[in-house]
Amino acid sequence: MRRSRHRNHDTALAPAARNGLLDRRIFLAGGAALAAAPAAQAEPLAVPPWSQVPGAGFTPYGAPSHFEAKVGRVFASAPGTTGTGAARTPLHLTDGMITPNGLHFERSHSGIPDIDPDAHRLLIHGLVRRPLVFTLETLARYPMESRITFLECAGNGQLLNAAQPAQATVQGLQGLVSCAEWTGVRLAVLLEEAGVDPRASWLLAEGADAAGMSRSVPLAKAMDDAMVALYQNGERVRPSNGYPMRLLLPGFEGNMNVKWLRRIKLTDGPTMTKDETSKYTILERDGKALQFAFPMEAKSLITRPSPGLTMKGPGLYDISGLAWSGYGKVAKVEVSADGGKSWAEAALSAPVLSRALTRFRLPWRWDGGPAMLQSRATDETGYVQPTRSELLARRGPNGLFHFNGIMSWSVAPGGEVKHAYA
Amino acid sequence: MRRSRHRNHDTALAPAARNGLLDRRIFLAGGAALAAAPAAQAEPLAVPPWSQVPGAGFTPYGAPSHFEAKVGRVFASAPGTTGTGAARTPLHLTDGMITPNGLHFERSHSGIPDIDPDAHRLLIHGLVRRPLVFTLETLARYPMESRITFLECAGNGQLLNAAQPAQATVQGLQGLVSCAEWTGVRLAVLLEEAGVDPRASWLLAEGADAAGMSRSVPLAKAMDDAMVALYQNGERVRPSNGYPMRLLLPGFEGNMNVKWLRRIKLTDGPTMTKDETSKYTILERDGKALQFAFPMEAKSLITRPSPGLTMKGPGLYDISGLAWSGYGKVAKVEVSADGGKSWAEAALSAPVLSRALTRFRLPWRWDGGPAMLQSRATDETGYVQPTRSELLARRGPNGLFHFNGIMSWSVAPGGEVKHAYA
Repeated sequence: MRRSRHRNHDTALAPAARNGLLDRRIFLAGGAALAAAPAAQAEPLAVPPWSQVPGAGFTPYGAPSHFEAKVGRVFASAPGTTGTGAARTPLHLTDGMITPNGLHFERSHSGIPDIDPDAHRLLIHGLVRRPLVFTLETLARYPMESRITFLECAGNGQLLNAAQPAQATVQGLQGLVSCAEWTGVRLAVLLEEAGVDPRASWLLAEGADAAGMSRSVPLAKAMDDAMVALYQNGERVRPSNGYPMRLLLPGFEGNMNVKWLRRIKLTDGPTMTKDETSKYTILERDGKALQFAFPMEAKSLITRPSPGLTMKGPGLYDISGLAWSGYGKVAKVEVSADGGKSWAEAALSAPVLSRALTRFRLPWRWDGGPAMLQSRATDETGYVQPTRSELLARRGPNGLFHFNGIMSWSVAPGGEVKHAYA
Repeated sequence: MRRSRHRNHDTALAPAARNGLLDRRIFLAGGAALAAAPAAQAEPLAVPPWSQVPGAGFTPYGAPSHFEAKVGRVFASAPGTTGTGAARTPLHLTDGMITPNGLHFERSHSGIPDIDPDAHRLLIHGLVRRPLVFTLETLARYPMESRITFLECAGNGQLLNAAQPAQATVQGLQGLVSCAEWTGVRLAVLLEEAGVDPRASWLLAEGADAAGMSRSVPLAKAMDDAMVALYQNGERVRPSNGYPMRLLLPGFEGNMNVKWLRRIKLTDGPTMTKDETSKYTILERDGKALQFAFPMEAKSLITRPSPGLTMKGPGLYDISGLAWSGYGKVAKVEVSADGGKSWAEAALSAPVLSRALTRFRLPWRWDGGPAMLQSRATDETGYVQPTRSELLARRGPNGLFHFNGIMSWSVAPGGEVKHAYA
C-alpha cells in the first residue's frame, strides 16, 4: 500500500487574512485542530441500544430522521390565504450545492395547484408557423438535457433594505435561493418545432395556477439555454416547483421561471402582464424604476457560522457558504473576519458550474474575540458583489428586489452570532 | 434581440448507426419530430379546474405529487426479517444524474437503526498515535468537502447470471445504484489528526447497525478520497443511508461505504470480517474466488426505453441511460439498436464527474420494426464494458458480484420492450 504523501506542516496553518483566517489549502497535520476528544475512556466500546435490536424495514419513499424535524422550510402567507407567499430553505442547516427537493424554496402567487399530469397541456402559439400542443408524453420524446442551476426569488434579501439589521437566521434573511439538477426539453427545440415567425422577439409564459402567473421573456433567452423542466433532482418536478412542468431560465429571477407552465405565446414585444408592471421592478433613488432586470447579480453569504448558531469556544472552525451569479460561473469568493478590512480567498467546491450554487469554504481559527464575518463573490464577468452601503447609495432604500449586498455576521466573545451592518 | 442562429437542417437528422440511431448533435428543425399535436382545437384555451381555485399552502418539508405514487423503491427482505435485504431505485422513472434522497437505493444487513445523533460517537483507534472520539459537533469543525458520486451494491445485476433473461424492469434488474452529492470530512484529515502509525496499512470500518457490518479498507484509499459523509444532497444523511454518518469510498462497492459508521481501527492487514469472507467475493470458473475486488467496473444501461415501458408507435424517441465507473470518469458511451452490430456515440450530459453517474442520451427514429437496444461504456482508463458472454466466459455463471455486462432490451413491432440476451 502506498503511504500518505509528506506534507509541509510549517505552511499548513499559514494565516491568510487577519483575525484567524487560514489558508484555504490547509491540510491538518497531527493534532492541528484538536476538536476531538482523546479516546482513553472509549475502549472497550459501549454497544448503544440501537445496535442491540434489528432496525427498521424498507419504505418505498424515504424520509429524514425524526431527529431532523427542525430542518424545515419556514413560511409566511398573505392574510386570508394559505398559499400566497413564500417558504424558505434552511440554508444554515444544509450543506453542499444541491438543495434536497423537500427543502427547495417556494414562491407562490395563489397556492400550489393539484394538476393531473395526464390532463395537463402545454400550448405553444402566437407568432409561430404551426401552433402545437404538447402532452407530458409527447414532450418526453424530444431530446432532453440536464442542468444544475440555482433559482433565486427576485425579492430574496429584501429585509436587508431595513434601517436596522433584522435579527433572523440566514434562512429568514436569504432563504429564497436553492439549487437543483433540472432535466427537460430545451425550449429552443420546441420553438423550432413550432416554427418561429421572424417577427417574434419575445414570448409570454403563463402558469396554470389560479393567479395565472405570467411573464414576458426575450426570445434570445428562450433560444439560448431555456428549458421546459420535467424532472428535479432525478424525480418529477415537485408540485410546489411547478409539477408537471416549469419554465427554467438559468440565472433569471425566480418568478420568470414560470411554474405549472401551460402556455408560451410568441410575441413582437413584452406583454406587460400584471406580474411585471405591479411587481418585480426595482425602484431607484431618482424615483424611476428598473423594469426587466432579469439575471440575478453575483452574491454570496456565509451559512456556517451564521445568525442563530452559537460557536462553542475558541479553536478551529470550518467557514462554509454559498455563492452564485446569474451571469455565469463564480470566479472567486473572499472571506473577511474583520468586517472587510482584510480578505482571504476561499476554496470553491468542484464542480463550479455556470449559474449554479457554488459552495465555498475556509478554515478559521477563532481566538474567542469579537469578529465580523463577511463574504464577497466575484463572477466570471469580473463583477464584484457590492457592499450594502454601495448598493443602497446607488439605488436608495426602496429597491426591494435583487438585493445582493455583502452580508455581515458579528461574532461576540461568548460565541453568539448575529446579523449586523458593518 | 438576437435571432436564433442558422442551423444546417440537412445534417440535423443524419443517421449515426443502423436501425434509426441519429447523430447525438441533433438539433430539430421545423417539424422534424412531429410528436406534438397541432393546436387547431386548443384556442381559446380551456381553463382547467385546478386553475379555478386557490391552490394548496406551504409545508415545512415537501413531497412528490400524489400522481407519482407509483414512483417508489421496490424491496425484498430476508425471510423472518423486515430490514435485511435491499430496496431498489426506480431507474426507469427517474432522469438526470442525481437520485433524490427518498429514492436512493438501500442495502441493509439488519435493518435501519434509529440513532440519536447527539449520543452517536465515531472512534478512531488501533495503529494511531492518539486514539480519538468524535461527536457530530466536533466533526463539523473540521474542513469539509462535497463530492457527487455513485454508490452501487456489489450484487447489482446479479439476476443477469441466470440462464434465461429475467423479465423485470431496469429497477428490478439494476436498481441497486444511485448517485448523490455527499458532504463531509475527508477521512485523511481525521486520520492525520489521530496520527497514523507507520505500521498501519489497512483499516477496519464498523457500522452501528445490529449486524455490526464491518469491512477492511486499504489505507491508501482512506488517505486518498475517502470521506466521513454527514450530508446527502444538502441535508443530513438519510437513516437508510447511514444517519448520522457513513463512510464514503468513491467507486468502491456499496457495502464498503459502511453506514452508521461508529469505528475505524487502523491495522497492519485486512481483518477478514464475516462480511468479507462469507460474502462479497467473486467465484471464478476455476473454483477460486476473487477477494477484495473493490472498485466497481465501468457499466452502462438504457433507462428509457426499458423493460416494462411500451413505445407508442413509430417516430422520434430520446434514448436515455446511465453510465459510471469506479475507476474514474466515463469517457464514452455507445448505443446500438441492432444488438451490437453497429454503434453510435451518445451525448454525455455535463458535468461528467469522476465516479459519478453520467447521463447519456441519443435520438432514435424508431421505424416500428424489431430492434435490440444496447449501451456500452468506456471509462477514462480505456476499459470497455464487456458483453454478457465475454463476462461469463471469463468467470463462469456463479460470480454473483460485480456484474457489469452489456444489457439488451428487445423492442417488438408492437412497442413492447423486454429484457433479452443478445
